[in-house]
Amino acid sequence: MIHPLLGTRFSPTKFDPAGRVDDQALELLLEAARWAPSAGNSQPWGFLAARPGEPAHDQVAPHLARSSARWALDAGLLVVTLTRRWVDEPGIAYSEFADYDLGQAVAHLTVQAQALDLAVHQFRAFDLDGLTAELRPGPGWEIVSMLAVGRAADGPSLARERRSVADLTTAPFLP
Amino acid sequence: MIHPLLGTRFSPTKFDPAGRVDDQALELLLEAARWAPSAGNSQPWGFLAARPGEPAHDQVAPHLARSSARWALDAGLLVVTLTRRWVDEPGIAYSEFADYDLGQAVAHLTVQAQALDLAVHQFRAFDLDGLTAELRPGPGWEIVSMLAVGRAADGPSLARERRSVADLTTAPFLP
Repeated sequence: MIHPLLGTRFSPTKFDPAGRVDDQALELLLEAARWAPSAGNSQPWGFLAARPGEPAHDQVAPHLARSSARWALDAGLLVVTLTRRWVDEPGIAYSEFADYDLGQAVAHLTVQAQALDLAVHQFRAFDLDGLTAELRPGPGWEIVSMLAVGRAADGPSLARERRSVADLTTAPFLP
Repeated sequence: MIHPLLGTRFSPTKFDPAGRVDDQALELLLEAARWAPSAGNSQPWGFLAARPGEPAHDQVAPHLARSSARWALDAGLLVVTLTRRWVDEPGIAYSEFADYDLGQAVAHLTVQAQALDLAVHQFRAFDLDGLTAELRPGPGWEIVSMLAVGRAADGPSLARERRSVADLTTAPFLP
């Protein structure tokens, strides 16, 4: 059996609106992301954390798609993830691992969330252009994903499926 | 304190050549990667696993840079990671999260390795073109990184550093 922090993880589609993410939990989530590995320790990641009632939450919420707003606004925390794609303006890549390393940092944050009895649902159902215009990331930075973090109010989908291990190791080499 | 599986993780630069990765451990590592989340459950990841003495190890080893061969060949397992960047030939992206999700799967594998008292050092110090010609991934697949997995024979670097949490949340928004 894989470790319970990985094996019991799922992405809730319902969050308990009473499930708060306090300052200490938020700090631990970002601390976990912070200590993720990255290519040449380039740490290309950045995060905007927004909890219900905070000004950042009011900035972010209107840009969610209706499909995600339905459940994500009940989460105790929304995180906008960013990566440093370019050294400055688009053209010179900051790191060929900018997205890969952001994914790692998000995964570390997710494992830490599980350890705090919180759950994470990542999503892309938001207006990227609208949110970018709202948050105005600096030169080289781009918004990649959003995370809803909170207390799960449902269980894993019964239809949870994955490719087999055999497929993971053979599919890349099919002609 | 962040969870020990995250907090005690480091990338060894020395592996114990006696540290084997047995079949059960290898299965758990791939199983952990397999259950990582991905955009729309697209699971864009693929892996080649190669242990010393296996034909795949002989295929991979000559393409390591001298800098990584020095320590990576002592590891009980080398993994070549691939992602499905394109639906078929370069042009139509398979997923805008192909690299991000591979990073997540590698992070889940890494956490599982820690739970097995194994350590992971990811690296890009290999001949990408040479390894691609050797392994000939199928249409749409591209090699991204390599992992050395084994029993650490050193400790974390004393100079281990990261950007501060404050920097993670402010740097993306500097003008």
